[in-house]
Amino acid sequence: MPNYKLITEYDGSKFWGWQVQPNLRTVQGELEKAFFLFSKEKIRIVCAGRTDRGVHALAQVANFKCVRPIDPVIAKRALNGITRNDVLVHDVQQVPDGFNARFDAVARQYIYKLSLRPRAIGRQYTYYCKFPLDVEAMQQASKCLLGEHSFEAFSRKSADEKHYLSHVEFVEWRQDGDRLVFRIRANRFVYGMVRMLVGSLVQVGRGVIPVVQFAEILASKSRDQPGFKAPAHGLFFEKAIYPKDVFG
Amino acid sequence: MPNYKLITEYDGSKFWGWQVQPNLRTVQGELEKAFFLFSKEKIRIVCAGRTDRGVHALAQVANFKCVRPIDPVIAKRALNGITRNDVLVHDVQQVPDGFNARFDAVARQYIYKLSLRPRAIGRQYTYYCKFPLDVEAMQQASKCLLGEHSFEAFSRKSADEKHYLSHVEFVEWRQDGDRLVFRIRANRFVYGMVRMLVGSLVQVGRGVIPVVQFAEILASKSRDQPGFKAPAHGLFFEKAIYPKDVFG
Repeated sequence: MPNYKLITEYDGSKFWGWQVQPNLRTVQGELEKAFFLFSKEKIRIVCAGRTDRGVHALAQVANFKCVRPIDPVIAKRALNGITRNDVLVHDVQQVPDGFNARFDAVARQYIYKLSLRPRAIGRQYTYYCKFPLDVEAMQQASKCLLGEHSFEAFSRKSADEKHYLSHVEFVEWRQDGDRLVFRIRANRFVYGMVRMLVGSLVQVGRGVIPVVQFAEILASKSRDQPGFKAPAHGLFFEKAIYPKDVFG
Repeated sequence: MPNYKLITEYDGSKFWGWQVQPNLRTVQGELEKAFFLFSKEKIRIVCAGRTDRGVHALAQVANFKCVRPIDPVIAKRALNGITRNDVLVHDVQQVPDGFNARFDAVARQYIYKLSLRPRAIGRQYTYYCKFPLDVEAMQQASKCLLGEHSFEAFSRKSADEKHYLSHVEFVEWRQDGDRLVFRIRANRFVYGMVRMLVGSLVQVGRGVIPVVQFAEILASKSRDQPGFKAPAHGLFFEKAIYPKDVFG
């Protein structure tokens, strides 16, 4: 069966996350329904990084197989014509049969946007933190995340999770006008990881968690830490990284 | 009666514009209702630049008078507590009795955001123009707007309008990543002016209207021109400018 790669952007505000769920509007569900309307074929779409309810994606990568070959350009236009405009297909491309958007990704990158002031415009895309934040401290605390660690302390319990190991390749806090952007790249993310990290780093920025204690929390592998889970609407799946030769 | 100045930001997506209208949700209406809930007094709010349905404001300036003096800090918190979060009061301040947000403003500034690519995230705040645009040509055509002109050609008929004169002090197209931002400051704006200008300048950018013809359209004072009215959701009231001594 021919295999197609899909790059999609979505505004998570009105989605119950990526994954298909009965009677709920999800990104996967909408795309699969749209594809069925287009080519009368039921497909199953696999993505690089499933996102929770309310989480956005700038360039989610996914793939699907179908019996009847499709014209990628026509398929892209058809999907964009059928779906509502909070999901957008940027690209459809045929890829080698073996390509799997989830298992072939060697890294995923997320960003989390904090707003340093309340806002009406764009409030759906940033989390306003009303406390003054020490960005230096947040930056410094983040450094201990680099490398391979067990992120149990910054995870939610999940039956799917065989282990909590993740190798963090890049982490940064950057001020962008009146926004504070957290960017993190890792080979894999355990369930709830980015939002738990951001919530705890906000506590570091407020002075609730001292910088040194943050590394101790990571090392403790215990969920009993004074952080919180930052809200979904500040989180964006930014991109997935693949080995160069995977697309043939 | 004490007089108060109010600075407010709003996401125009779900408002039928600024001005009170029976049975429709408007910014003025929501703020006046919220004030009544707060202080049990019916007020009338006057703003620097009334915006149409769907138009946003980053810092709309307004003023109102009330019989019973209010604490500006408490009033701000109360209004923000009562209104939905697509309108936000940034500041409330007592000002001299004579201050009028509309008549004292010496200039208003608007921005219009074009997107150079389709987008799901932030689609409420930019107009995606699917044609390639010659930004140089748009920039060049805009220059003829500077100074005082009658903008009848770039206006919609309005019973309120005594004349179509406007003195444009500043005009610019600036590329900001994959967005193109039009910024214009003038002493007054005639009805529909910014959106008509943007629609016509997009036609210049597409090559439909030659640069030299744009100046001729302005001079013609005729509405029979090959431009169009750019959609509301790309437009933002940015700020109002007042003489320094007006706040006492």
